[in-house]
Amino acid sequence: MSEKNYNVERLAKIKETINKMDPVDIADKLEILPEKDVAIWIKLLNKDLLADTFTELRPENKARIVNILSESSIKDLVRDLDEDELVDTLQELPANITKKLMDFHIDKDRRKVVNELLGYPKESVGSIMTVNFLSVKENLTPKQALDKIMASQLDAEKLEQIWITNQSLVLLGFVYIADIIRYQDKSLNELLTSISATVSPYEDQEVVAKLSYKYDLGEVPVVDSENRLIGIVPAEDVIDVAHDEFQEDISNITGISDQSESYLNESSFKIAKARTTWLIICLLTATMTGFIIHRYENLLASAVVLTAYIPMLMDSGGNAGSQASTTVITSLYSGEIGIKDFFKVIIKEASIGIITGLILVIVNFLRLMIMDRAAIAVNLTVSLTLLLTIIFSKVMGGILPIIAEKCKIDPTVMAGPLITTIVDTLVLLIYFEVASLMLGL
Amino acid sequence: MSEKNYNVERLAKIKETINKMDPVDIADKLEILPEKDVAIWIKLLNKDLLADTFTELRPENKARIVNILSESSIKDLVRDLDEDELVDTLQELPANITKKLMDFHIDKDRRKVVNELLGYPKESVGSIMTVNFLSVKENLTPKQALDKIMASQLDAEKLEQIWITNQSLVLLGFVYIADIIRYQDKSLNELLTSISATVSPYEDQEVVAKLSYKYDLGEVPVVDSENRLIGIVPAEDVIDVAHDEFQEDISNITGISDQSESYLNESSFKIAKARTTWLIICLLTATMTGFIIHRYENLLASAVVLTAYIPMLMDSGGNAGSQASTTVITSLYSGEIGIKDFFKVIIKEASIGIITGLILVIVNFLRLMIMDRAAIAVNLTVSLTLLLTIIFSKVMGGILPIIAEKCKIDPTVMAGPLITTIVDTLVLLIYFEVASLMLGL
Repeated sequence: MSEKNYNVERLAKIKETINKMDPVDIADKLEILPEKDVAIWIKLLNKDLLADTFTELRPENKARIVNILSESSIKDLVRDLDEDELVDTLQELPANITKKLMDFHIDKDRRKVVNELLGYPKESVGSIMTVNFLSVKENLTPKQALDKIMASQLDAEKLEQIWITNQSLVLLGFVYIADIIRYQDKSLNELLTSISATVSPYEDQEVVAKLSYKYDLGEVPVVDSENRLIGIVPAEDVIDVAHDEFQEDISNITGISDQSESYLNESSFKIAKARTTWLIICLLTATMTGFIIHRYENLLASAVVLTAYIPMLMDSGGNAGSQASTTVITSLYSGEIGIKDFFKVIIKEASIGIITGLILVIVNFLRLMIMDRAAIAVNLTVSLTLLLTIIFSKVMGGILPIIAEKCKIDPTVMAGPLITTIVDTLVLLIYFEVASLMLGL
Repeated sequence: MSEKNYNVERLAKIKETINKMDPVDIADKLEILPEKDVAIWIKLLNKDLLADTFTELRPENKARIVNILSESSIKDLVRDLDEDELVDTLQELPANITKKLMDFHIDKDRRKVVNELLGYPKESVGSIMTVNFLSVKENLTPKQALDKIMASQLDAEKLEQIWITNQSLVLLGFVYIADIIRYQDKSLNELLTSISATVSPYEDQEVVAKLSYKYDLGEVPVVDSENRLIGIVPAEDVIDVAHDEFQEDISNITGISDQSESYLNESSFKIAKARTTWLIICLLTATMTGFIIHRYENLLASAVVLTAYIPMLMDSGGNAGSQASTTVITSLYSGEIGIKDFFKVIIKEASIGIITGLILVIVNFLRLMIMDRAAIAVNLTVSLTLLLTIIFSKVMGGILPIIAEKCKIDPTVMAGPLITTIVDTLVLLIYFEVASLMLGL
């Protein structure tokens, strides 16, 4: 459809339909509509809905819409955005638009808050928290607290929990609004749920997801160094963070450096770029495996049959190692183990490796005997290598994430291509050494 | 510490300390305390806190504590648990304890609800939803709704959103309690936030995490086939589900069949068992790679140098394939792509593969020329194989999860060991065919 197809009746109909839609669905639609239609939709949307839709858009579309809107509509839009949404927007838009918004459309009081929020590092708690919350002092009566709620200009979704501080503004806990209404004869202190966990604005956003999971928190309070409440991360945002961190982890494990938000709409070049770095690193480190094979070329030439088992040994080692590292990563994540458990993990993985390795050796020995009719010396060489490979890969897979944690590298980075390469190299070394010994070559 | 070390003063002190702790932390502590101390702690805990702590315990400790408690304490505990918590507990406990609780400690009205909840399949939405919510009809005034809230016996955390239905109990949306207080002159319909998404109790719990992520929902409403509200999944539980599904996905990717909740405390045998199944499957499918190498043994014998590049080619293929499959899995998860996009994914991955492959070929060609001083024919053989490998692996990695989705298998299962094995087999076939052609062997 193009502009000339619109008539007054049609526009009224579209207006009615879209203003009943969910902002997420409107945003999805705007991403794929042609430019001209986007301009029309934007004009037909109610102000509130426009603001909600705007926050769901991808950066390039946010910029496009700011360019479509009139100066007065931009002012309305900026006013309807919460401070944290505004900050997200400012970080995503091109510098010239950001400057324009800051200079002309954000009033002085908000500019201060926005500038403060802009100061927090990327992916920190401070960068995602909302500063729109209601806190009251503990000595208020429920009736007084209720008056504050009645007078509050905040959206109702920010008023589910009312935060309670002492006289020095130190955070004590929160009270549910339903209890304030129901138990007006009690004191706020009696109604208060004390704080299980708080987080600093400078910590990584992942911490919020961890705490929320551990303590079943709906909203996570953010405090400064003196334990004064400065922000909140609401449950909806915790869910977003958990999802994003999950995507990041899973991308790291498969060596994708920068997972883009879109797949089919993203250019193949950009996706290829994100994937290539790790592949090149692996390609270059695979030089090691090449060297080893070169070194043992004579051995291989006199027993070409050995080559047939290289893929199986390498894959078994790689898989065994990845299993160990993902288990250790998730245990690190949930806080069950820490850097202090380094030696416990070695013992644990070694014993798991011995059990798993022995089972695999039995299966493999029978397979080689029955299907391949392999010479017993070859069979024993492969079996012994397999056992050592599994034990070794499990231990390596277990300790690499802990070493990463110690070096303050994301452990998921270790679980990916890197471990495969390390394990491959060592598997080959073990294989050829065992073969030299067993086959007397 | 053992029982004889306790005196009245000491007990009073412990009582004061533990009743100020968070239930999650108390549960953590109970997991590691000796049996005797557990019995003492349990007796010192306030009733409410005992119920909250109980829900956080691992199954074996729940059973232990039920055995420690007196009949009247069990009755109190059961009464303090929400229906959904009670159902979780019943599913975890040994049959004899479950029967005892059902027969003696759960009153008739609750038994009906509990039995209904027990009927939902494992990991379904119905099995995790809470039935404790407040819904009112749309024609009520805010004042009347407020009276219902005042009279409600529900915990305040279940009263953050009040659900609104029409006269036939069909769910329309919800109203925040703060708006009911602030805008008593408006109608509930004016204050209502309409529903963006609902979920059936029979769907997989993962759906809740997806919807909540997509539509930024705090609480996800569960409805029956006539769109009547029958339960709610609160944000805290959505966060738990998202975390559990993440762990499940990441375990699938590395071929761990049944990730246990604990790592260091779990027996090595049990962990080994969960990891062995996939390793055996891979070992057996690796027979394919063995066969292929056997078949081309003569070729390898006359050009042993080719062996040196097998690990690099296999790893590059495996990594490239995993990258594609995790990207496609996360896009399937977020709903950006579906089964209908099968051919789009093939084209996308093929073009990404060509770009990535060409870059890798250049790097590899230079490496072989400079470092290995490889013969040009060998270098060309490896380069061509590498290019085909990358393209091929990307496409396979991209379509396997979609095929899995189509066959109603969890796509993450495809991203793991299976893809490595398939890619390995095909890489070797390509390699040897190219070599026969290029080297004229």
